[in-house]
Amino acid sequence: MRDSRGLNAIFRPTSLTLTQSYRVESSAYDLVVIGSGPAGQKGAIAASKLGKRVAVVDRKERIGGVCLHTGTIPSKTLRESILYLSGYRQRAFYGRDYSLKDEISVGDLSSRVRKVMGREMEVVRAQLKRNRVTTVHGSARFLDPHAVEVQTQDGSVLLRAGNVLVACGTRPAESPTVPLDGRRILDSDQLLQSELLPRELIVVGAGVIGLEYASMMTALNIRVTIIEQRPTILDFVDREMVEALYYFMRQRGATFRLGEKVVSVGVDGRDRVVASLESGKQVHGDALLYTVGRQANADLLNLEAAGLAADSRGRLAVNEHFQTAVPHIYAAGDVIGFPSLASTSMEQGRLASCHMFGGPESSRKEFLPYGIYTIPEISMVGSTEQELTAAKIPYEVGQAKFEELAKGQMLGVDVGLLKILFDPKSLKVLGVHAIGESAAEIIHIGQAVLSFGATIEYFRDTTFNYPTLAEAYKVAGLDGLNRL
Amino acid sequence: MRDSRGLNAIFRPTSLTLTQSYRVESSAYDLVVIGSGPAGQKGAIAASKLGKRVAVVDRKERIGGVCLHTGTIPSKTLRESILYLSGYRQRAFYGRDYSLKDEISVGDLSSRVRKVMGREMEVVRAQLKRNRVTTVHGSARFLDPHAVEVQTQDGSVLLRAGNVLVACGTRPAESPTVPLDGRRILDSDQLLQSELLPRELIVVGAGVIGLEYASMMTALNIRVTIIEQRPTILDFVDREMVEALYYFMRQRGATFRLGEKVVSVGVDGRDRVVASLESGKQVHGDALLYTVGRQANADLLNLEAAGLAADSRGRLAVNEHFQTAVPHIYAAGDVIGFPSLASTSMEQGRLASCHMFGGPESSRKEFLPYGIYTIPEISMVGSTEQELTAAKIPYEVGQAKFEELAKGQMLGVDVGLLKILFDPKSLKVLGVHAIGESAAEIIHIGQAVLSFGATIEYFRDTTFNYPTLAEAYKVAGLDGLNRL
Repeated sequence: MRDSRGLNAIFRPTSLTLTQSYRVESSAYDLVVIGSGPAGQKGAIAASKLGKRVAVVDRKERIGGVCLHTGTIPSKTLRESILYLSGYRQRAFYGRDYSLKDEISVGDLSSRVRKVMGREMEVVRAQLKRNRVTTVHGSARFLDPHAVEVQTQDGSVLLRAGNVLVACGTRPAESPTVPLDGRRILDSDQLLQSELLPRELIVVGAGVIGLEYASMMTALNIRVTIIEQRPTILDFVDREMVEALYYFMRQRGATFRLGEKVVSVGVDGRDRVVASLESGKQVHGDALLYTVGRQANADLLNLEAAGLAADSRGRLAVNEHFQTAVPHIYAAGDVIGFPSLASTSMEQGRLASCHMFGGPESSRKEFLPYGIYTIPEISMVGSTEQELTAAKIPYEVGQAKFEELAKGQMLGVDVGLLKILFDPKSLKVLGVHAIGESAAEIIHIGQAVLSFGATIEYFRDTTFNYPTLAEAYKVAGLDGLNRL
Repeated sequence: MRDSRGLNAIFRPTSLTLTQSYRVESSAYDLVVIGSGPAGQKGAIAASKLGKRVAVVDRKERIGGVCLHTGTIPSKTLRESILYLSGYRQRAFYGRDYSLKDEISVGDLSSRVRKVMGREMEVVRAQLKRNRVTTVHGSARFLDPHAVEVQTQDGSVLLRAGNVLVACGTRPAESPTVPLDGRRILDSDQLLQSELLPRELIVVGAGVIGLEYASMMTALNIRVTIIEQRPTILDFVDREMVEALYYFMRQRGATFRLGEKVVSVGVDGRDRVVASLESGKQVHGDALLYTVGRQANADLLNLEAAGLAADSRGRLAVNEHFQTAVPHIYAAGDVIGFPSLASTSMEQGRLASCHMFGGPESSRKEFLPYGIYTIPEISMVGSTEQELTAAKIPYEVGQAKFEELAKGQMLGVDVGLLKILFDPKSLKVLGVHAIGESAAEIIHIGQAVLSFGATIEYFRDTTFNYPTLAEAYKVAGLDGLNRL
């Protein structure tokens, strides 16, 4: 993936034609992939496995994309660091204020992040190399629908492409109301570079990114105020899980200001950040994190030369095969919008290449899991109670609390719930929702049962390892059947 | 469950008849359960849910059985304590010799164990109470096939029973060669009461219990020598997983002496334990843990009054419905032998009650998972490579290393492998084997796919949350398909 820095510098007029100054690649590629994040990587590898010649374009220092550099990898690694160093998981045994380190510094937190990012870059490079994917380091732009120009350190390179996969990702959106200074008023990219841990943090925007960072900060005993213009959060998530998240974040010192609009952000006389709300309230803090929206990078690719246009947020529209309006140009990942998860992006990239080159595509109905890495983490697959009610589909509920499981007690969890929604007549599973330790791991058990169209009896009739958190399925299954 | 102490004291002749001295229960029970471990609990609750009158007999201080008092619960809690306090999971980031505490004492380790045992006893009591199961505290023995006498603190109680479920568990077996002293020469019950952590430990017996304790000790940098009479260990486990376990335990300082028989155990002139082997070797250590075999407690129940007999190891034989030779007397849990896991015992207890009272029994083929809580942990479901080869069933392999997964890197795992065995023609999954962090959790994903008779394509066509260890299924699935 890429961002805006440096790209404008290499912008050239569309009418540019090929000249001697190009170090022209000796042969064309079956597929040129723009961006090396999850969608680009998996698209490239899938095409290569189908015997195609593939090139991936990305700037050298950005191999792995937003996911690796400023997104999932650093944020989830930071989360693991925080869970460990803050002693969060151990508080049931050592007391509520237990912390492994009394003073946790940014250095403590970032050392693991740096190591993991370094290793993950090696993994990405090795995977591309092992799969004989050519990597071209630089910034890409279209010259025509089958030609991509790459500005490299050594000059321009022209890539002729039978197909193109646009997987160029996103960058944080900006707002005129929020004057980012990279020090106290930050976007999520800047937060990861930050040198200080605030004592009080204002988070503007309660999407997944905002909530993940806000909940991490509460685990560090940082007081967090979350401001969101909409009156609710995470509307695609089951309400019971969201309400549990509210409860646990508030227990850790979070304040929610929902349905509140930020009209200005500045610094007050005591050198503290102040956000003024339309309702007249003022919220003060040592720092402010702005996480409202992302801007896709397709606006930077000279799309008109390919006969394409991005929408106002830089996104590309695609059909169910991930084809843009120009059929041999595909797009996948964050650049096509929701759900913008690394997991879905990988799958989109792979499926795009399978469609291009006739690889195997499944016809099975896909039950997409969602993992939200707040503290506590939330995961889900299938329908929510709200969706079922709106669709007038009756359901019954079976549930299990993690603290009643032997494994939950051993881990000292103070939160954890697994909920199975099922049809009270056919007993078919309709949805599974979990909050708590390992929720994003064990949700895949429910996903398999949903995918095979099975009933809640599966959980009654199956032996689960003991002690595990997965045993929650057994308990919830029996609970659900007993309610009938 | 129960052990031998105190039981002999209340032994009475079989010919005893009912007299005034009995506080006779006002009415008979549909089911009397002997033992309140996993099998007894779940059997009692299942019967109660079917509307039956149920009594569970166990000594007050032993509610929850071996599982809760000297088995799974304390040993797996101890394991979590060790993983945390030793910093084992964090060594990738803080160095190989990193430890959270420099000097880990027994007190550090046992405080969590005591808390968890206390809470789990409350959970068991609350579950029995909520399900209206009568608990009778004391030791049980048969008077006739429908009468169980309980010696309580307040005298004897007679329980009339339509059916009986024997779930009385096991105790450590003893050996004339190994003079247990509860101080330096210990069985696994005594180890948990031990006041000191040895620097060098000898473990005699490399079954699951022996290996679990041995690997925990290696995580504490204790030098361990494991002596086993058979030339191999864990014969039901896939060899690749066992070989990985050998490797990682040896890396942590374990020595394996397989195919070696202990002929005597004593204390040498320097007050150290010495085990003499038939091969002439002598193994020295500060302590010795003896974990060869378990003796079932059915020999203590006055079985002849019920028309039953235990085998030489105190076990009862049952048919596929868990009925003993006397059809209304069932047995479940460790007292019937292999696999003697809490997970299977629960299911046996539940199924026994369902068979007694016409509850729902599944006809689906069950794929039983195994969880072995060594460090690293091992889990499996379905066939091993060895079983398939012996049965002349061709297979292909797909695998994923945890260290190549983003989540694996974030957690800093240095070990982890998921292996999927599948039919290269039909692509049906035949077995799943895992070693490493959360192996016992994520195995249930493979278990579901196996249970529904699905193919390895499921993993290719399914989106997995990112980052998770469950993503190993996706990587292994693609790897397997690429090998065809």
